[in-house]
Amino acid sequence: MTLNLENEKRSENTMSKSYRLFTFTGGNEGVWEIIRTVTVIGDHWPPAERLAVRADEGRVAEGSANSVWELRGITSNERYTNRPEKDTLRQRQEGLGRPSSTLAALIPIRKKMTWWTMTQDERRAVFEEQSKHIGIGLTYLPAIARRLHHCRDLSEREPFDFLTWFEFAPESETAFDRMLEELRRSPEWDYVDWEIDIRLRRV
Amino acid sequence: MTLNLENEKRSENTMSKSYRLFTFTGGNEGVWEIIRTVTVIGDHWPPAERLAVRADEGRVAEGSANSVWELRGITSNERYTNRPEKDTLRQRQEGLGRPSSTLAALIPIRKKMTWWTMTQDERRAVFEEQSKHIGIGLTYLPAIARRLHHCRDLSEREPFDFLTWFEFAPESETAFDRMLEELRRSPEWDYVDWEIDIRLRRV
Repeated sequence: MTLNLENEKRSENTMSKSYRLFTFTGGNEGVWEIIRTVTVIGDHWPPAERLAVRADEGRVAEGSANSVWELRGITSNERYTNRPEKDTLRQRQEGLGRPSSTLAALIPIRKKMTWWTMTQDERRAVFEEQSKHIGIGLTYLPAIARRLHHCRDLSEREPFDFLTWFEFAPESETAFDRMLEELRRSPEWDYVDWEIDIRLRRV
Repeated sequence: MTLNLENEKRSENTMSKSYRLFTFTGGNEGVWEIIRTVTVIGDHWPPAERLAVRADEGRVAEGSANSVWELRGITSNERYTNRPEKDTLRQRQEGLGRPSSTLAALIPIRKKMTWWTMTQDERRAVFEEQSKHIGIGLTYLPAIARRLHHCRDLSEREPFDFLTWFEFAPESETAFDRMLEELRRSPEWDYVDWEIDIRLRRV
C-alpha cells in the first residue's frame, strides 16, 4: 500500500511516528508545482512540472508512469546534534504542513568521499564548530520547517546522500535564501560535490 | 548480477572498495556451516544448516529457494570512533578472509527506541565512555577480525539494526566469547532488545 500523504488528514506528528521512508517523484503529478530546478554544484538535474511526496511503508516505490525522476530518503537518528542543541531546536521549531507554508524546497546533496572517511569527531568539527550548521538553522526557526532524509545507506546506488525538505511562507523566502547562502559559504560545503535546489509552490 | 564472494578470488581489500551491501542467507547453501544459533536477548531465530554471504551491488537479493532466513546490511561511515581511536584500530586490526580464520560469528542486534532517540553525545557517552565498546574490541585485535553492517536505514522493515560479522581462528574462540561477555555486561547492552548469536565453521 502506498499512502498519498497529500490526501491524508493525519498530522505530521502522527506521521513521523509511523513513517520514515519517503519518495519524491518529479513528473506531472502531485500538489507541489516545481517553480525552478537549479544545479548549485555538479551535474545537471532534469526539470519536471510537479512533485509528489509519498510515504512508502518501507517499500521501494514503483516508478510512476509519467515520472521524470524519483528520489528516496529515510529519516533517521540524529548524527551530530547534542542534547542542548536538540532541546533548543525542539523549543523553536514547528512541524511541516502549516497552512501558511505554501512554498517549499527540496535540496538533494551528495558529499565527497573525503567526508565519509572522516571520523565522527572530525565531521562534527566541520559541521558545527567550523560551519555552525545547527547554529545557522536555529536563526531561521520557526519560519523555516525542515525534514532531513538520508539516502546513502538505503543502497549502494542512490544518486544523493541526503534530501532535505523545507517549508515556509512566501514572506520567509528571502530569509530562506539567506540561510542557504550562509550554509553554502561554510567550510562544510567544501565537502559537497553535488547539490540541486528545487523550488516549489503548493497548488 | 549477484556475485558469490565465496567463489571469488578477490581480496577483501578490493571488495571493501567496491561493495557495501551484503546479504546473509541461512539455508542449505554456502561455505559456512552453522554450528549453533543462540537467542541471547528477545525472540527466537530459526536455525539453518548453512550460511551464504553475498555482495549484492545494491540490489535487493531474491530470496533463494531453500533459504530459512535472509538478512541484509550495508557498511557505512563510522558513527562513534574518533581520530585517535581509528588510528589505533587501523594499526592493530587485520582483514577478513585470513586462511587461519576458520570460525566465524554473525551477531544480529536490535536496539531499543530509547537508544535511537538519544542525541549523538548521549549515545557516544554510553557507547565508549561508559561501556568501552571500542576499548574492549581493541584488546582482542588482531585475533578477532570484524565487519559491521547497518540495517536500520535500509528500509523501515529490517528486523535488526546491525549485523556484525566476526572471523577468528579456533584458538581464539575462548577470547571471542570473553569479549562478548564483556560487551554484554556493559551499560550499552541495556539498550539491546534483540540479539542472536550465530556461530559458524568454514567447510
